[in-house]
Amino acid sequence: MKRQGISNNVIRRLPQYLRKLDDLTYKGVERISSSELGVQMGLTPSQIRQDFSCFGEFGQQGYGYNVRALRAEIANILGMDRDYSVILVGVGHIGQSLIQNFDFSRYGFRFMGAFEIRKELVGTEIAGSIIMDAEYQDEFIRQKNIDIAILSVQKRRAQAVTNRLVRSGIRAIWNFTDVHVDAGDPNVIVEDIYFSDSLLSLSYRLSIEDKSGADKHI
Amino acid sequence: MKRQGISNNVIRRLPQYLRKLDDLTYKGVERISSSELGVQMGLTPSQIRQDFSCFGEFGQQGYGYNVRALRAEIANILGMDRDYSVILVGVGHIGQSLIQNFDFSRYGFRFMGAFEIRKELVGTEIAGSIIMDAEYQDEFIRQKNIDIAILSVQKRRAQAVTNRLVRSGIRAIWNFTDVHVDAGDPNVIVEDIYFSDSLLSLSYRLSIEDKSGADKHI
Repeated sequence: MKRQGISNNVIRRLPQYLRKLDDLTYKGVERISSSELGVQMGLTPSQIRQDFSCFGEFGQQGYGYNVRALRAEIANILGMDRDYSVILVGVGHIGQSLIQNFDFSRYGFRFMGAFEIRKELVGTEIAGSIIMDAEYQDEFIRQKNIDIAILSVQKRRAQAVTNRLVRSGIRAIWNFTDVHVDAGDPNVIVEDIYFSDSLLSLSYRLSIEDKSGADKHI
Repeated sequence: MKRQGISNNVIRRLPQYLRKLDDLTYKGVERISSSELGVQMGLTPSQIRQDFSCFGEFGQQGYGYNVRALRAEIANILGMDRDYSVILVGVGHIGQSLIQNFDFSRYGFRFMGAFEIRKELVGTEIAGSIIMDAEYQDEFIRQKNIDIAILSVQKRRAQAVTNRLVRSGIRAIWNFTDVHVDAGDPNVIVEDIYFSDSLLSLSYRLSIEDKSGADKHI
């Protein structure tokens, strides 16, 4: 199996395939053709075949894709079978929403706990998780070999907390602070969530609708 | 100026360019070459030139790009000059975080108000905004010609609230519920934020690091 050189665009589509395959499994669908999958996902069949060909052969001529096998392979490629451990750093609104609503185990992650500097929150419980004092964060990361920290502290603290996480040996930071943070170590992965990117994509689509009526250049 | 057929990949990169150009402006940088921009963004100079060539010519040989002019053009393409109005529907943790932290005006949006069904929240104030009763939502959308609704209600209510928003004449839905909603009208735009996509991209990158040590196939 050849996996080197999977393009970023394919990687970005894999979670979409995963959601669709989960949805199909839920509906009891066992196999699906690339053309039907294409219709349901707004992609061409050849695009789908090309995406999947990057990491092996799943389709059979005249049969289509086995939903369960394809789902398992995509999960494997995405590292969902690696049991990565996650902590939350900063229990603001976003952090609380994640603890309460995000299903870490569904994607193969182990949620290990949440840390907060505000003493009034330490010791309180959210969705079955007791908020811990940020004072013990470094030791916790080292002792339990935590892989991923969700960074949801205030913007002005984002870089300082990042530095501390890197010193503690964290391997990856999932950054919700809406500011850029620099891990300062090429081996530490930073994945940013910028809400604005998504809103601007929406506004682009709206403006295209507006202009297609009013502007002959478009 | 030719704008038809800008690929999705280019569109997705525009907000990244915008962030970088804002950062450069903040630092007092007035012009930048495509090679320097490439280094700072992890893209090749030819990729950058190709992206910008989709919507006109901004660079000058031996001069580079004018940061301010390029920023203005990208903002225009993204519809940031259209003064779109936004309401928040559902004031949970995510909704509260958006009201408190998201700078709508920076991206050219007008935040018009928040609606909630829980009576105990109606009339309370968050970041200068008085929470309104969801009962008045339809009338508000119609009277004020609201363009965009941020959907952050509970998953089980997501589709019903979507139907109601579409009936009220909303033009676009920014969906934070982590479940698929169907507008049922091809003219209504739905833009989903799936937190899991970003976490899975991170976990993919982590697993590549793991495998590159342990697995000769990679």
